[in-house]
Order: sequence, then structure tokens, then C-alpha cells
Amino acid sequence: MENDVTTLRRLKTIEGHLRGVIRMVEQDAYCIDVIRQIQAVESALNKVSTQILENHLNSCVTTALRGNNAGERERVLKEITEVFEMSTKV
Amino acid sequence: MENDVTTLRRLKTIEGHLRGVIRMVEQDAYCIDVIRQIQAVESALNKVSTQILENHLNSCVTTALRGNNAGERERVLKEITEVFEMSTKV
Amino acid sequence: MENDVTTLRRLKTIEGHLRGVIRMVEQDAYCIDVIRQIQAVESALNKVSTQILENHLNSCVTTALRGNNAGERERVLKEITEVFEMSTKV
Amino acid sequence: MENDVTTLRRLKTIEGHLRGVIRMVEQDAYCIDVIRQIQAVESALNKVSTQILENHLNSCVTTALRGNNAGERERVLKEITEVFEMSTKV
Repeated sequence: MENDVTTLRRLKTIEGHLRGVIRMVEQDAYCIDVIRQIQAVESALNKVSTQILENHLNSCVTTALRGNNAGERERVLKEITEVFEMSTKV
Repeated sequence: MENDVTTLRRLKTIEGHLRGVIRMVEQDAYCIDVIRQIQAVESALNKVSTQILENHLNSCVTTALRGNNAGERERVLKEITEVFEMSTKV
Repeated sequence: MENDVTTLRRLKTIEGHLRGVIRMVEQDAYCIDVIRQIQAVESALNKVSTQILENHLNSCVTTALRGNNAGERERVLKEITEVFEMSTKV
Repeated sequence: MENDVTTLRRLKTIEGHLRGVIRMVEQDAYCIDVIRQIQAVESALNKVSTQILENHLNSCVTTALRGNNAGERERVLKEITEVFEMSTKV
């Protein structure tokens, strides 16, 4: 719960940052400055993703792996592999 | 100008996407689904950055490189290198 | 074991690819072609990393999480978070 | 020329680093340590790419953009956009 509060707060901060980028474009800001701000938004999103993954590993993944449902264990591990693979592409 | 309209439209779509992610967290969506949506937002931001860079190369960079201000030429090229370097890190 | 054989084979293929890139530079190949080949090498390395992580999740991580050593469980999860965080930066 | 020497030296260092990773796998090193070393190789490759792009911008791209061949100007700018786009995916 505490963790979700942190995640939400961070995501709302990022939303504010993104609105700032939109205003920059509306006010014809210099292209390179816009790109840099977009990269900063992406960097902040990566931090949130990492935090969510950490919570997930310590809750759902731990519960599933310690449980007796082999299909469930396989599923949670496959998901970790998939988000890791995707993270190398975005 | 036309290009800015496209950029703005895309950024506003991404803002809507990000608000959707915030709602997912508020409604206790599954962690992996939230991470996947954040990755989708990042992928969309990368596309916008690429589009902005393309416009920039065809306008400011071309003008600067064809001009006679050596300092200005150096500056615009240095900026391209910097955003490229940063793009490999986010 | 089988998995290690696949990993090794892939890494040796990538080593051959990288030597090809070195030859390109030695023979004054076009810069953009060299960059594209380096990006292809990186993409192949990402695939190997993902495969290694998948094996790791299905072996060490599963064993640790199903075991009774809380410190060990914490350690393997922390490592997953760290390589995920790093993967968003390279 | 000087730049090519630096690029070559860096790439050969990375080749040595990659051979070290192969030895780690042959000697059954811990998975996470292997992944970290692969990420270090990728980070080094990104630095080389950035250096090659910088040289390219200051030579071929500058020459093309200051020249009178519109097709050539368009081609070099398109290539920059393409490697930038790709860099956000690997």
C-alpha cells in the first residue's frame, strides 16, 4: 500500500513533467530542449518501472514461487523474462 | 508548423495513455500489466523524439551547417551527439 | 548444461560479429554502416542476457525462493531488480 | 585517422572484454555476474557508437550539408534519424 502511494506520487509528478513538455512544444521551444525533457521523462518512467518490479518480486513472485502451483510459478517467471526483454528495447 | 501539430497531437495522446496508467495503479492493477503499459508509453515517447529530431535536422541543423558561423555549426552537431548518447541510456 | 551450450554458441557468434565490425573499421567502412553493425551486436547481446536471466529464474531464483534462507531470497530478488534497472540504461 | 585509431583500440578492448564473458560462461560463473558483464560490454559499445557518430557528423554530414547535392543532404540526415531511432531500441 505504502509502495503504491509512492508509485502514484511519482507517476503524477511525471504526468506534470509531460504536460510541461507539451507546453514547451506549444510555445515553440528549441527542439533539442524538448528531446532532452522527453528523455528525462523516460528516465523517470524507468525508475518507476523498477520500483514496481521490485514490489512485485517481493510480493506476488515470492508467493507464487513458494506455492505449489507449478503453472503459476512458470507464469510469473515468464512475465519477468518478458518485461526484462522489453526493457532492453525501449 | 504542420510537424508541430503532429508532435503535439502525439504528446497529448501519450499524456492520455499515462493518465490511464495512473488509473491502473489507483485501481490496483496487476504490476506486470502496469510495467508493460509504462514500456508502451516509453516506446511512444521514443517515436516522438525521433520525429522531433528529424524535423530539427531538416531545419535548424541544415541551416546552421550551410551557414558561415563555425561556432553555430559546432554547437548543433554537439547537441546531436549528446541526445544520441543520452538515447542509449534511457 | 544444454542452456549453457546455447549461451556459449551465441556469445561466440557475437564475438565473430564484433571481429567483423573491427575489420570494417580497419577497412574504412562507412560510419553509419559501422554504427548499424554495432547496434546489431548489442541487440544480439540483449537476447543472450534475456536467455541467461530466464535460466537463472528457473534455477537459482526458484531454488532460493522455495528455500528457507530469508537473506538468500532477498539477495536473489535484489539482483533481479538491479539487472532490470541497468537494462533500462544500456 | 586519429579518430579511427581510437575507435579501433576501443573495439579491440571490447572484444577482449567479450572473450572474458565467454570464459566466465565456460567456467560456470554466476548468471547475474555474466549479465552484468554483458551490460558493461553494451555500455562500452554505446560509447564507441557515439564517438563514431560524432566523427561522422563533423566530416561526411558537414560536407554533404554544405554541398549542393540535395539528394545527398537528404540521405545523410535520414541516416542520422535512423540510427537515433534504432538506438532507442537496443
